[in-house]
Amino acid sequence: MSDTPHTPLDNPPDTPPTSPADSTLELRSTVAGDGSVTLAVHRADVAAPAPDEVVVRVEAAPINPSDLGMLFAGADMASATGVASPSDESLPAVRAMIPTGTAGLEGRLDTAMPTGNEGGGTVVATGDSDDARALAGKVVGFLSGNAYAEYRTIKVSSCLAMNDGTDPEDAAACFVNPLTALGMVETMLDEGHRGLLHTVGASNLGLMLNRICLADGVPLVNIVRRAEHVELLRGEGAEHVVDSSAESFVSDLTDALRATGATIAFDAIGGGDLASVILSRMEKVASEGDQFSRYGSSTHKQVYVYGGLDRSPTILNRNFGMAWSVGGWLLTPFLMKVGPEAAERLRRRVADEITTTFASSYGMRLSLTDAVDPEQARRYARMATGDKALITPHAADA
Amino acid sequence: MSDTPHTPLDNPPDTPPTSPADSTLELRSTVAGDGSVTLAVHRADVAAPAPDEVVVRVEAAPINPSDLGMLFAGADMASATGVASPSDESLPAVRAMIPTGTAGLEGRLDTAMPTGNEGGGTVVATGDSDDARALAGKVVGFLSGNAYAEYRTIKVSSCLAMNDGTDPEDAAACFVNPLTALGMVETMLDEGHRGLLHTVGASNLGLMLNRICLADGVPLVNIVRRAEHVELLRGEGAEHVVDSSAESFVSDLTDALRATGATIAFDAIGGGDLASVILSRMEKVASEGDQFSRYGSSTHKQVYVYGGLDRSPTILNRNFGMAWSVGGWLLTPFLMKVGPEAAERLRRRVADEITTTFASSYGMRLSLTDAVDPEQARRYARMATGDKALITPHAADA
Repeated sequence: MSDTPHTPLDNPPDTPPTSPADSTLELRSTVAGDGSVTLAVHRADVAAPAPDEVVVRVEAAPINPSDLGMLFAGADMASATGVASPSDESLPAVRAMIPTGTAGLEGRLDTAMPTGNEGGGTVVATGDSDDARALAGKVVGFLSGNAYAEYRTIKVSSCLAMNDGTDPEDAAACFVNPLTALGMVETMLDEGHRGLLHTVGASNLGLMLNRICLADGVPLVNIVRRAEHVELLRGEGAEHVVDSSAESFVSDLTDALRATGATIAFDAIGGGDLASVILSRMEKVASEGDQFSRYGSSTHKQVYVYGGLDRSPTILNRNFGMAWSVGGWLLTPFLMKVGPEAAERLRRRVADEITTTFASSYGMRLSLTDAVDPEQARRYARMATGDKALITPHAADA
Repeated sequence: MSDTPHTPLDNPPDTPPTSPADSTLELRSTVAGDGSVTLAVHRADVAAPAPDEVVVRVEAAPINPSDLGMLFAGADMASATGVASPSDESLPAVRAMIPTGTAGLEGRLDTAMPTGNEGGGTVVATGDSDDARALAGKVVGFLSGNAYAEYRTIKVSSCLAMNDGTDPEDAAACFVNPLTALGMVETMLDEGHRGLLHTVGASNLGLMLNRICLADGVPLVNIVRRAEHVELLRGEGAEHVVDSSAESFVSDLTDALRATGATIAFDAIGGGDLASVILSRMEKVASEGDQFSRYGSSTHKQVYVYGGLDRSPTILNRNFGMAWSVGGWLLTPFLMKVGPEAAERLRRRVADEITTTFASSYGMRLSLTDAVDPEQARRYARMATGDKALITPHAADA
């Protein structure tokens, strides 16, 4: 049940725990056979740190789009209602129904899954290793998959130590968005493209990517979904911002692709025909001045789908020649592919620029209790740009 | 207009042509601004061979699915009617209307495009180079993009010399299908997969691929679209044949993927949700026994779309994790990627096994005049398995 520690306790059973907290509240999500999903506040033990672990007092953890699947498993949030926590009647929970049932969710059925990919906080206890001791008292960000909790026992290798003076809240989102944005640029270079397109330009990740591309001289096309986001990005120095809600979207997009030479796109939306439109406009630009070829241009056009804000199917009209690819893109395999040295270089850049290039902003702050309030859950599950949620486990309930 | 030679005439203007034929009938296709496409018999000069060229008397040329775009540009063949050739009133032609108009076809508008990717025949004249002279009197297959003609002047590098005694008709389809089938296996190995799926198992290409995989010990899943094709392939020794028209298709497919470990598919259909179903079943097999992961399995699943028998959009339901890719696959870039040595190895295998592994069969034989008959055009444009057309330019009209 919920009191199984997430990280194994490697030290001998007779070692006394060195953690100042021996219990924590945390958020776990359970899919049941009736097609419901319950996100609940649980109480759990805090595992004493193994030699290569530290205990972090979690000050803040963002709700990223990539957290949503584990939190609510595709449930229809209109159906969300408040219930008691399955583990303890005195703790709150929220329950919603999954319209598509439990197909594909067999692996997590009836298991209270931890939630929260990343967080930030202060190291309050450490294991015996030198690497662990070096983090004592430090502010760290961490990637753990169970960040929505008051305290967490975390492997040192899953922590990123911040420079002195960093606010733990600034450290909270130092993994997913910063490394994803850096990974996009690295992937672009590695695969031989000379410009990049991003479909959610005004998101926290989009703003980071824009700052990276400006600093590194990488041509970037930003797609945004609302007119006011054009201004937001232009105010941040973005040159090519295209509003997908505008009537002139397709021609604006074509112009921006021509100006930048972008032939690789990173798409967080996933559903609908946006990827198809992007590929067809890239192909149009690539074919300009070419002789007609029955197979289209020889320019390879790539769309990586790294999110699924629109859960409807991806529609590819295949009117973009034969030199194209659409595929999934995920941070962890990318980091494994580039190897530890490159990953460390990217992590150091994040720590050094955490309040500038990699600064995040939030539209709401939620206690653990707030996070299972049906009204709040409906709001943060929409993932509206500019309305991102930050969980602050030690703050008083709203 | 249509009498421009396809290959440039490099020898000085005063060199007398060495070709025994100075004129040829040929098929050319013209898209007009009114959204019509006209496939017509034209008369053209036969260019004298440059030093690195030969003149081939074309005995046979297949109509491959990959020829259809150039022939009819996506026209609705129900609208096909007989007309006179635009170049010569005494020659026949067929005209049909393109439902989607001329969008994407700007590059070929009002130009009489040559047709026919490949053919086979006998070398009847050669240029002065040693390589060209070596082909005198030989039976060759060739890849030229203008094969639907009585005579063609072809670069030596675009010819594949057959072993002595080969029937020119057997040489006609020695490039597109054989090298594509070999290319699929090479791609599978190169990208680290251990089994392969093909969506049109009973096609000429599918039968070749099945023979290659049997000979080379490569696990292969064949999808066919009719029950009788299951028997056809089993009769050829295929172990895993799945009928997409059967009610048990999805579970049969899953079983075959499990048995073979196939994680790469080559799809000639393109439209609809077949690629999506394949990816989701590959993911199901890859996840078996794994712990639940919010991002799906780490097994990379690849679908290459190399044809478009179904021209409707590709629908991806994205219920197959994040480790996936769907992309176009084309023979020429593949051959360029593997380089000349590997390409030559594959070509030699084709020549050596042209009547066995790489044998083709046809459901109809058409003269050039037959090919522009509206009734015949409707039939071969359907690309039904077992009803493939072979153009035999020197045969009498049907």
